[in-house]
Order: sequence, then C-alpha cells, then structure tokens
Amino acid sequence: MANSPSGDSMLDRVVRILESFDDTQPRLTVGSLARRSGIPQATTYRLVGELVQHGLLTRDDDGRVRLGLRLWELVARSAPARDLREAALPFLQDVQSVVHQHTQLAVLQDDEVLVLERLSASDSVVNQASVARRLPVHDTSLGMSMLAFSAAEVQETYRRRHPEVEKRFAATTRDFRRALAEVRRRGYARFDGVLDEGTTGIAVPVLARSGHALAALGVVVPTGASRQQAVVPVLMAAARGIARGVGERPPD
Amino acid sequence: MANSPSGDSMLDRVVRILESFDDTQPRLTVGSLARRSGIPQATTYRLVGELVQHGLLTRDDDGRVRLGLRLWELVARSAPARDLREAALPFLQDVQSVVHQHTQLAVLQDDEVLVLERLSASDSVVNQASVARRLPVHDTSLGMSMLAFSAAEVQETYRRRHPEVEKRFAATTRDFRRALAEVRRRGYARFDGVLDEGTTGIAVPVLARSGHALAALGVVVPTGASRQQAVVPVLMAAARGIARGVGERPPD
Repeated sequence: MANSPSGDSMLDRVVRILESFDDTQPRLTVGSLARRSGIPQATTYRLVGELVQHGLLTRDDDGRVRLGLRLWELVARSAPARDLREAALPFLQDVQSVVHQHTQLAVLQDDEVLVLERLSASDSVVNQASVARRLPVHDTSLGMSMLAFSAAEVQETYRRRHPEVEKRFAATTRDFRRALAEVRRRGYARFDGVLDEGTTGIAVPVLARSGHALAALGVVVPTGASRQQAVVPVLMAAARGIARGVGERPPD
Repeated sequence: MANSPSGDSMLDRVVRILESFDDTQPRLTVGSLARRSGIPQATTYRLVGELVQHGLLTRDDDGRVRLGLRLWELVARSAPARDLREAALPFLQDVQSVVHQHTQLAVLQDDEVLVLERLSASDSVVNQASVARRLPVHDTSLGMSMLAFSAAEVQETYRRRHPEVEKRFAATTRDFRRALAEVRRRGYARFDGVLDEGTTGIAVPVLARSGHALAALGVVVPTGASRQQAVVPVLMAAARGIARGVGERPPD
C-alpha cells in the first residue's frame, strides 16, 4: 500500500475526503476539500481526479465536487441495515399517518444514536435528527430506549465512558441507572425538549428474541400535545411488526 | 498512486471490492470476494483488513464480510440526489396510500433507469425494481417517460446505441420515435408486463422548468386492474409537487 510521507495510507486519504462532505456541505471546491481533509492540495487534486474517474465523486459545472451517484448506488444496493430499514419502512409510514409527526428509526453505533430512516410530515415540529445523523444517547428518547434494553455491561460501559450523565440525570432527581430502569419498566423513553425546545421525543425499542434492542422507533411531537400518551401503544405495536419483519420473534 | 503489477490502482481495487457486493450477495467470504473482484487472494485479504479497520467493511462472526455501517453513513449523509429523494418521499407515500402498489422514483443514468426510492405495499404485485437497481430504459414505463421528455439529441444517442429498440417497437406496430412521441403527447408511459408478466407499469416524468425530465415517478399495478387509468392524474399531480420541492416550477 502506498503511504504518503506522513504515513497515511491511500485509503486513509480517500476516507478523509469522503468524510469532508456532509449535509451542510454537500458540494466543495477542491481547495476547501484539501483544507477540510487536511490532505496537501496537490494530492487532493490528484485523488479527486481519480475518484471522479471512478464515479465516486462528481464534478459540477462550477468545478465543485460532490459524492457521485455511482457511490450511492454501490452502497444502497447492499446497504448495511438494509433489511431492517426495508422491514421498518411500512411501519414508519403507518405510525406517521396516525401521529403526523417526524417518525424515525435508529440504531446504537459507537456510543451514539445513528438515524437510519426518517419520515417527515410537512407540518412536523422542528427536529435535529436527519437520515445518517448522529445524536447523543442520553439526551434522546431513541438512545435511552435502546440503552435501557441493552446488556448490563453495555450500560455500565456507557456510564463509565460518559461521566457527565450522572450530573445530567441528577438534575431531574434520578440517577442514570434508575432512569434506565424506569425506561425498561415502562417499555418506552420520553424526553421533553432536550435537543429542541417545545418538542417531546417518545421512543420504544425494537426488540430481538434475546430481549435486547436491535433498533429504536420514535416520534417527535409538540410538548404538551393532548394525545401524546396514545402514541406509545402505536409505537409498541409497530416495533413488534418491525422485529417480526427481520425474523425476530418479539418477546411477550 | 501505488499500482499493482497489472497496472490497477489501489482505488480500482477498492471499487472492484465494493462492486462485488449486491442485494443477492450482501455477505461474502474473502475467498469469494477475491474471485468476484478478480483481485489476487493475498491482496484481497490485505485490502479487506484495511477496509474493515476504516469501517468501510464489517467482518461478521463467521468471517464473512459486508459493507460497513460507516460507509453507509458517509454516503447517506450527503447522498447524491438526496434533495430529490427527500422532496419525493412524502409524495411517494401519498401515491402509494391511494394506489396500494409499488411506487418508485427513478433517474436516467448511463442509458439505464436507476431506482432511487421505492415504497412497497405488503400486498403489491411482483416487481423487479428495488432501490439502487438498474432497469432497461426502453422496457420500462419509468425509462420511457424520462426519455420521451429528454432533449432530441439524448433520444437519438440512445436509439443509436441501442439498435435493438427498433425491432422491439416494430412488434407493437410502432417505431421507437413514434412511441416516444406518443408518450410525450399523452404525458405518461405505460407498459404491460414486459419485465414481469401480469403487471403494468405506469410512469410520468418529474419535469424541470426546461420541460425536460429530472426523474420519473411510477407505479406497478396488476394488468387489467379496473382503476388503472385513474392512476395517471394522481402521478401527474405528485410529480408536479416533487418538481416544486426541488425548486423547479413545473411547466404548465
């Protein structure tokens, strides 16, 4: 493998180039791509040329580059978590057609919530989550519903790596372990306006046969909405359907 | 760039590895990955190791590898055609909730139809299209609806590169140019059971301000279904909404 003088491999540099794009910056000049990726400009130019040639990047008329449709195609065709997303989509639609608010499917990834799929209603309240976005575990109903239904050692590891959670939960008169136990007892997690004021997140785990969470299904509703509590059984029923769709028999 | 003795660049090999996965083979042993990609086994092992380290591939407990969630995340976050897909999703849902059949959004890419998004109803008829799959242009209503609303030179280039289309359309007593003109006059394309017997594809273009197709919106319904014709205005209205959603004013 060709290594640069700094010891980075070619693959390191390709990954850093791909990482430089996001939903706020989907199109970049090669110059800003070099700055964002920390790769020397001449190397960036050469690499971008090769990536464009392979269809992994596309060059627009104004010279800016963005991820290529070919790259999307390669990934979407055998996308990780595709089975889960495909099984979940009809249920997300069902939930959204009843609740009329953002409806989301997420998984735990590297101590964070990774949003896999999201349906938005045009009149939905504001919400930070978007497809492929990451959210903090202990500030979201999606994250807490999954962590509460994870193995005890996963919970303890999380707590050890995030000492700030104790302070966070002390403010609401509960400690973190009790908060998780409560979510577990209730079967769902609810947070009022932690990330977005005026909104409440409600989420339930999608449970595997083992009783552990495979994913979470959640909605974001205006805080204080009258039928808020009625959302929970809708989510629970849909989560069971999703589990069945990926070949898991949800625990009784 | 490090080239192998055969002259392939490192990036060539990475792309060939990614291309080896698809929806029928989302998990591969490193041996079969080497065979499918045509890369020497030792090189494949080394490359897979590095790709796993970067999260672009994931190794399962049984040693098989598949695309990594990190790769999906990088691509989904700033995915090409993401604006189009996001603008289209609510309209796809609207169409599907009325028609209760597969509803699809596609674009023209390299003389083929690339399916960007697809909603399936659980009781839908069989259909070959799936997200990120490619379909032939002249055998699908999606393809024909886009080609009919493309610039004259795009149509002629397609016809020149695909001499088989004349024979294909001669069988239905129309030549290819007349078939395109007819789709253009009607504003939609319809095909009975070309790819899947017993099904009919109906599609309309999503038109840019220029009058050319940005994308196509289509459904697959059982052939001979009673309300088939009623689908067309539903699709046309939804296509206008999608065009508006990406900042195009659909032509009157």
